[in-house]
Amino acid sequence: MAIEVEQSSSVGLSKIAVSDTHGEDSPYFAGWKAYDENPYDEFKNPNGVIQMGLAENQVSFDLLEDYLEKHSESSTLRPRSSGISNFRENALFQDYHGLLTFRKAMASFMERIRGGRAKFDPDRVVLTAGATAANELLTFILADPGDALLVPTPYYPGFDRDLRWRTGVQIVPVHCDSSNNFQVTPKALEEAFNKATSMNIKVKGLLMTNPSNPLGASIQRSVLEEILDFVTRKNIHLVSDEIYSGSVFSSSEFISIAEILESRNYKDSERVHIVYSLSKDLGLPGFRIGTIYSYNDKVVTTARRMSSFSLISAQTQHLLSSMLLDIEFTDNYIKTNRERLRKRYEMIIGGLKKAGIECLKGNAGLFCWMNLSPLLKNNSTREGELELWDSFLHEVKLNISPGSSCHCSEPGWFRVCFANMSEQTLHIALNRISTFMEKRKN
Amino acid sequence: MAIEVEQSSSVGLSKIAVSDTHGEDSPYFAGWKAYDENPYDEFKNPNGVIQMGLAENQVSFDLLEDYLEKHSESSTLRPRSSGISNFRENALFQDYHGLLTFRKAMASFMERIRGGRAKFDPDRVVLTAGATAANELLTFILADPGDALLVPTPYYPGFDRDLRWRTGVQIVPVHCDSSNNFQVTPKALEEAFNKATSMNIKVKGLLMTNPSNPLGASIQRSVLEEILDFVTRKNIHLVSDEIYSGSVFSSSEFISIAEILESRNYKDSERVHIVYSLSKDLGLPGFRIGTIYSYNDKVVTTARRMSSFSLISAQTQHLLSSMLLDIEFTDNYIKTNRERLRKRYEMIIGGLKKAGIECLKGNAGLFCWMNLSPLLKNNSTREGELELWDSFLHEVKLNISPGSSCHCSEPGWFRVCFANMSEQTLHIALNRISTFMEKRKN
Repeated sequence: MAIEVEQSSSVGLSKIAVSDTHGEDSPYFAGWKAYDENPYDEFKNPNGVIQMGLAENQVSFDLLEDYLEKHSESSTLRPRSSGISNFRENALFQDYHGLLTFRKAMASFMERIRGGRAKFDPDRVVLTAGATAANELLTFILADPGDALLVPTPYYPGFDRDLRWRTGVQIVPVHCDSSNNFQVTPKALEEAFNKATSMNIKVKGLLMTNPSNPLGASIQRSVLEEILDFVTRKNIHLVSDEIYSGSVFSSSEFISIAEILESRNYKDSERVHIVYSLSKDLGLPGFRIGTIYSYNDKVVTTARRMSSFSLISAQTQHLLSSMLLDIEFTDNYIKTNRERLRKRYEMIIGGLKKAGIECLKGNAGLFCWMNLSPLLKNNSTREGELELWDSFLHEVKLNISPGSSCHCSEPGWFRVCFANMSEQTLHIALNRISTFMEKRKN
Repeated sequence: MAIEVEQSSSVGLSKIAVSDTHGEDSPYFAGWKAYDENPYDEFKNPNGVIQMGLAENQVSFDLLEDYLEKHSESSTLRPRSSGISNFRENALFQDYHGLLTFRKAMASFMERIRGGRAKFDPDRVVLTAGATAANELLTFILADPGDALLVPTPYYPGFDRDLRWRTGVQIVPVHCDSSNNFQVTPKALEEAFNKATSMNIKVKGLLMTNPSNPLGASIQRSVLEEILDFVTRKNIHLVSDEIYSGSVFSSSEFISIAEILESRNYKDSERVHIVYSLSKDLGLPGFRIGTIYSYNDKVVTTARRMSSFSLISAQTQHLLSSMLLDIEFTDNYIKTNRERLRKRYEMIIGGLKKAGIECLKGNAGLFCWMNLSPLLKNNSTREGELELWDSFLHEVKLNISPGSSCHCSEPGWFRVCFANMSEQTLHIALNRISTFMEKRKN
């Protein structure tokens, strides 16, 4: 039966659906695809692409596995035979407050990471399916479509999607450069704010990553103080994405915005919101565990309601609760993980130095910020950087992330991940880089 | 240190954050709170409120538990000692395509529910953290802020939040009434469409629930044909939310829109999208497993990208994959679950009839649609309905959902859930209703 169509064109989709704000056409994601098509394998594909564009932590997995092996009661669902049906309880639990035990566990773990220098109230912990959801959710709550968030550059490429795509909010970059190791300055903050104002864009907040992704460095206390002063003066929100806080190589080198608030006895903490996740520090991205910690009651209430759209499986909350509440385990995990990441970092920095490459001095994260600007010579542009990136991908067979995909204002910087592979693979990657640099010299 | 604030008022939130479109102030959610404060318990609180406002399926849980007990390998994470580290694999899996095995399992399960009368391609299955996320995600993709979706009344109260809150999209109700058992008619569809047009609102699609929540009845083939003709003529999208498809009491009584497309060899299926979930048919709301099945390539691609904001824990995907792919288990589960739900339905319908209450003839779901309009007498208004609802909550001590919270245009109808409790509790609820009706008579 033929139906007459009253409207002529084929059925359309929304502006959001047809926009490319999802950002997947950027080199950041293109490199992933190139890796997927020809992935390195020691035996099966020794000439394949090594993935150094993925910030994944695999160096401390054995500790989690050991724990779960020894405490198998938390890794199973204990059906009826054991007398207690965790399965039933978990399967039915859909309250968007999340399991209280798990919120307590998250608050406790966040405190241990900060060496007890900040306190977290489980009632202020809002659970979300990963930090991706947490950042979007906060943006929905803090800004209207057309408003802006300030974000210091270079920044995580995914923010272009997470903060902008469905919210209609804009990002106004706060430009940082190598002259002061990419630290945020009061001048850069004012400039970004004034630029937005001159374009009639309302700035609703500033989002920073501390430790910084992609810099692999934590933010100094004085800079944090300046940023807090700035957002106070402008009366805007401050989102501190601290998903790498447990991946700082030394506990004392990380200062959470939570500590600054407590030490200053800051009065307007309702403008401050912290994002955390277990994807990086524990290496559990597949479990989708993110969290918003807000000092603002209204934000907590609203975020909790909104979390209906991105709840965490109760099975997974259950699995991790007792592990995170086991102080002996978590303290040992955090300490060992820090040491192992530092060792990896020193290995890659040393190898690159031998090959004649300098990196930004880092102290955190699963990557280093590599300076290849000397190689650009007469083509110190975004195009020159992407040409070099292409050589790395297709000649050196390494997928690294070009600084331009992180909105870095200086060409020639790259983010290189080192924790998603074995030491042996890292050595091979370093050898490939060394060979490439030798060839360049001749 | 005192910082001078350049802007005067305290830090503000977005329009979305301060709006009440989340809908939690409605009687639907108010009743939940009243239950939470005084929950019925056979021994500890025999005079407490019985929760009949929650569409939860607990009648077939034992079948899932039996399966997982017998197949414990799928309920544990098998750490290293077993030789295969599922834990590591699952913890790291964050691809928004979801585990291929799990998408296959979902497609297969959806086919079994439809008695093989429709085929589903795993490549078109998009995973989301529950149907809540699925419905919001589709709305983001199909409509712009200010546009509308048509939704037949009465409808699930949560749609006011899911389809509208963060998307800025409107719902234009298609009014259905008891004169034809609340079935959608071409006239009602045209009226709703014309009303939107006269208000300069662009209609982008129609969303229906089949089987209907709150009616507890599936949509007849002729009505589905009329709806498909309507959306074709208007060139708009059709979203078929079929989350209760496995809870129809007899397989033959449910016709999926997928079957209509196949049987008609329908050409424009790119306008059709199906929402499914394991929360109702399997009783697993805590596991947050929802899915979008779209016949539109662009919608599939975009929904997959958007699913970054609401991914399902890989641990949970892993747990359920083999169970859903076990044809013997699923066929038996679906059959037994249907029978048990029918038994429950007959029990409540019979009990209500004895008490002098009629219900809409149902054939599906975890609830019945109860007609108390004869009790309203001279106050057949929304206010009268809410007064009666209040009596039920505070005198009869039952939380049921008033039709007005489902935007029903006729006062006096209530949704009553029967699958989230034991048979014994259901009997007590029926006794309370019977006593109430007796008192009313005198």
